[in-house]
Amino acid sequence: MIILIQCSDRVGLVAAISGLLSKKGINIVSMREYVDVEANCFFNRVVCEQYHDPQILISELSSILPEDARVNINTEPQKKIIVLVTKEYHCLSDILVRNHFKTLGAGVQAVIGNHAVLKDICDRFGIPFYLVSHENKSREDFELQLQTAINKHSYDYIVLAKFMRILSPAFVESFPMHIVNIHHSFLPAFVGASPYRQAYKRGVKIIGATAHFVTNQLDEGPIIEQQVIQVDHTYTAADMMRAGKEIEKAVLAKALKLIVEDRVFVYNNKTIVFS
Amino acid sequence: MIILIQCSDRVGLVAAISGLLSKKGINIVSMREYVDVEANCFFNRVVCEQYHDPQILISELSSILPEDARVNINTEPQKKIIVLVTKEYHCLSDILVRNHFKTLGAGVQAVIGNHAVLKDICDRFGIPFYLVSHENKSREDFELQLQTAINKHSYDYIVLAKFMRILSPAFVESFPMHIVNIHHSFLPAFVGASPYRQAYKRGVKIIGATAHFVTNQLDEGPIIEQQVIQVDHTYTAADMMRAGKEIEKAVLAKALKLIVEDRVFVYNNKTIVFS
Amino acid sequence: MIILIQCSDRVGLVAAISGLLSKKGINIVSMREYVDVEANCFFNRVVCEQYHDPQILISELSSILPEDARVNINTEPQKKIIVLVTKEYHCLSDILVRNHFKTLGAGVQAVIGNHAVLKDICDRFGIPFYLVSHENKSREDFELQLQTAINKHSYDYIVLAKFMRILSPAFVESFPMHIVNIHHSFLPAFVGASPYRQAYKRGVKIIGATAHFVTNQLDEGPIIEQQVIQVDHTYTAADMMRAGKEIEKAVLAKALKLIVEDRVFVYNNKTIVFS
Amino acid sequence: MIILIQCSDRVGLVAAISGLLSKKGINIVSMREYVDVEANCFFNRVVCEQYHDPQILISELSSILPEDARVNINTEPQKKIIVLVTKEYHCLSDILVRNHFKTLGAGVQAVIGNHAVLKDICDRFGIPFYLVSHENKSREDFELQLQTAINKHSYDYIVLAKFMRILSPAFVESFPMHIVNIHHSFLPAFVGASPYRQAYKRGVKIIGATAHFVTNQLDEGPIIEQQVIQVDHTYTAADMMRAGKEIEKAVLAKALKLIVEDRVFVYNNKTIVFS
Repeated sequence: MIILIQCSDRVGLVAAISGLLSKKGINIVSMREYVDVEANCFFNRVVCEQYHDPQILISELSSILPEDARVNINTEPQKKIIVLVTKEYHCLSDILVRNHFKTLGAGVQAVIGNHAVLKDICDRFGIPFYLVSHENKSREDFELQLQTAINKHSYDYIVLAKFMRILSPAFVESFPMHIVNIHHSFLPAFVGASPYRQAYKRGVKIIGATAHFVTNQLDEGPIIEQQVIQVDHTYTAADMMRAGKEIEKAVLAKALKLIVEDRVFVYNNKTIVFS
Repeated sequence: MIILIQCSDRVGLVAAISGLLSKKGINIVSMREYVDVEANCFFNRVVCEQYHDPQILISELSSILPEDARVNINTEPQKKIIVLVTKEYHCLSDILVRNHFKTLGAGVQAVIGNHAVLKDICDRFGIPFYLVSHENKSREDFELQLQTAINKHSYDYIVLAKFMRILSPAFVESFPMHIVNIHHSFLPAFVGASPYRQAYKRGVKIIGATAHFVTNQLDEGPIIEQQVIQVDHTYTAADMMRAGKEIEKAVLAKALKLIVEDRVFVYNNKTIVFS
Repeated sequence: MIILIQCSDRVGLVAAISGLLSKKGINIVSMREYVDVEANCFFNRVVCEQYHDPQILISELSSILPEDARVNINTEPQKKIIVLVTKEYHCLSDILVRNHFKTLGAGVQAVIGNHAVLKDICDRFGIPFYLVSHENKSREDFELQLQTAINKHSYDYIVLAKFMRILSPAFVESFPMHIVNIHHSFLPAFVGASPYRQAYKRGVKIIGATAHFVTNQLDEGPIIEQQVIQVDHTYTAADMMRAGKEIEKAVLAKALKLIVEDRVFVYNNKTIVFS
Repeated sequence: MIILIQCSDRVGLVAAISGLLSKKGINIVSMREYVDVEANCFFNRVVCEQYHDPQILISELSSILPEDARVNINTEPQKKIIVLVTKEYHCLSDILVRNHFKTLGAGVQAVIGNHAVLKDICDRFGIPFYLVSHENKSREDFELQLQTAINKHSYDYIVLAKFMRILSPAFVESFPMHIVNIHHSFLPAFVGASPYRQAYKRGVKIIGATAHFVTNQLDEGPIIEQQVIQVDHTYTAADMMRAGKEIEKAVLAKALKLIVEDRVFVYNNKTIVFS
């Protein structure tokens, strides 16, 4: 069982929380806390034994914490995700393989593509694939159909695994901090389109990838994970893209692991990650 | 003020410790704990406000902890170190520069060399240098003279900054877990002499450096910090040595910072590092 | 077309080679050379336009080079590989996905496992899988059956993608420098069995993986590629294994790319890699 | 002796160059070439034995190369540099230590600061220090005085080792591609002032440093070297700055080494680095 607590900071919070759990005989397996001193904000993640009545425990914890406390208890074995894709296979395949061998830490419910090319790999792994083309329709209509396909399944997170369409504010706001994107650059460098082409033109010596939550500021959402690799003058833009894909899939996999294990808090457009 | 606690694990330790501090009105700035489940061992580092009587606090903490608890409280502003060297300048110079600009986190009391070449750089920074040659004398005599030079100063740690002599068991045992060495390889690869030559012959694609506490097993002491860099077939053994020195000084500086900030526990010949 | 030349070094080799190609009107796309000064050995990789008669070109090149010259010309579009596995899926799946989407740079002809668990994933990608169990048979018999399965296909390289059996000297010698292994440690640290367990016990702060050619010295063959990641005291041996698998598949993929693009020379039990 | 050639590409350049050197009996120690296919530009760096008349050799090489060829021959043992600083010691000290022990690959002629605090460390190493304050004077006057101080010495490169003033276009244009700057971010992320503060606010998980040639586009000059390190949510802006300084000095040292060894070509606002 995982308890997540976020509230304004004050003296004695750790003592109060661990004292309450101790009094109720709940053994703590591990406990991580962090205080953002500048923002006076306290973050706490507790892994402990299952407790028979999580709702009671939330009430009791809330009663000893500051008024602004948000307490979540996660007792479910694993999260559910829906993956949105366009044409590139590398991130999706990596997710499907991990899902197939039960090491993703989450269950892939469905894949939705605005092109059909990735249907075949989904079929091979027995995962439902929905084609929702964006062609010849308004963004409203496109997103309505996306929404319809999504709603056929239950899910905790939507993962944009190289989904090359920009989602509308209305769509993004329906799933706050529950849409994860992989951006193919080391943000905030090379925001927007064709980051590898931009990186090539700028002559950088390192390229990267960034997994972040989607907000309505393009490529400006809270960063979950970043990784980089060295490149040099011999790399064409195409070489950078090829090399970058290796990082993209690794970064997205790492970010998903952190999210589905409830290790990520979001605050002030930044993440606190208890890795 | 920094409190370090190490004891066998049991339910409620964090609650007990933070409860006691809270009751005494000592504000906790940050708290890190780790449980080695396999060894049933609990490690705790608390940064908190100064308390007027640390001895009383140690007693009170000990009284609520398991019997095997070791409680240390560090109220001193900074640690003192003595540096042992041979001929290579890169690690020593890096330490002297940081010391000079007061960013080492420790104070260099003296430098002892078994060759004279590094006296000049010590003079330039106004740091006492002692020449203790190993030539034409037994190891016992050599170490006796080392000891005499060391004893002219007070110190918390002895730092071997490319000191190329192997110390006797008797000497090492006089300073258990208080001698820090920088080894010029990614241990446990290339234990012993000429690691760069060994690395070159083996054709490795990565080389590294390791900072560790000295024990009587050559290059087998608890590892504090390791870093690596990529090399390739164009590197001669001399090139590897040159590249490696950049890492050596970075690793030693990082390890010293961790140690003098009381961030390192040693247990079962391994370190717990609250970085 | 790729020309690979290896010979003892002397003045004017590059001029001679590029002069001959220029005279024959063969445009050089790129050229890489390296001289191992200590060993007086010259290595050259030329990417150039196709030439209608490679055999003639080999003769002409040989006639202007030192007597010990080995000249190879590769005109084939892609290499063929056979993959040997045991139970772990991560390296094999990564290879199968790349193979499926035609970005491996090689073609997977077949997979042979000494356990049956990975047959399913091969079936999903339409790749032949042969079960050759090692149980209840001598190593000679086991390897004879391996050989029989291998011989059903043509191939350039045999890839040990977490194949957990040690091959006999006779078997290895049948394919000199054509068997590639992924070892789950940063060699030469932790040679042999259970490297993650060894790494955990030693308390290292970095773990890695090594792709190398197989020779009859266990884990001592020429190293092709190595990568590492940071770990800390919170990693159990199982955590290290999990983290290490991410590196293993990346290292093996990178090594395979280098090999199938003819970028790797072997000399003195080391590799020259024109990456 | 090092020969640097840059010209438009055509078939047979390597053959022509190495043929000429071979004919003149000049032994080539190593040769690196690169063709930017998109720009049709050829870059060549040859390390060879000294030749008694470099001017003749330049003429002869030029006569066999395309008309736009720029041929440089460097026979001097080491470059001279002048270092500009403000208040931060870490990059300057690193340069002074390497200079003192003759491993910089260049000779520091003088240090110029717009504050006086770094005079002391220069004195300790016997390096001339000039105070040129920017206070109470126009940028023209300030740069005139800078120029006067610079002109007291001969030099090949001007190194901005955390010099916190922006130089005028006129000043920069006097030294095209001969002013090297260390920028305290992973460019192009966080151009301009306070990059660590920007990085902190953006919540990045990696920070870096960039060494580049100075042009009249702020922080937009050709990138020579970049390195990064991981950070996390526990880093304050001050922690990021501290960690970043370790990278800054390493990146600047690496870039200087590449430059003074004539390993860097500049083309289309990018660098070709034969590392």
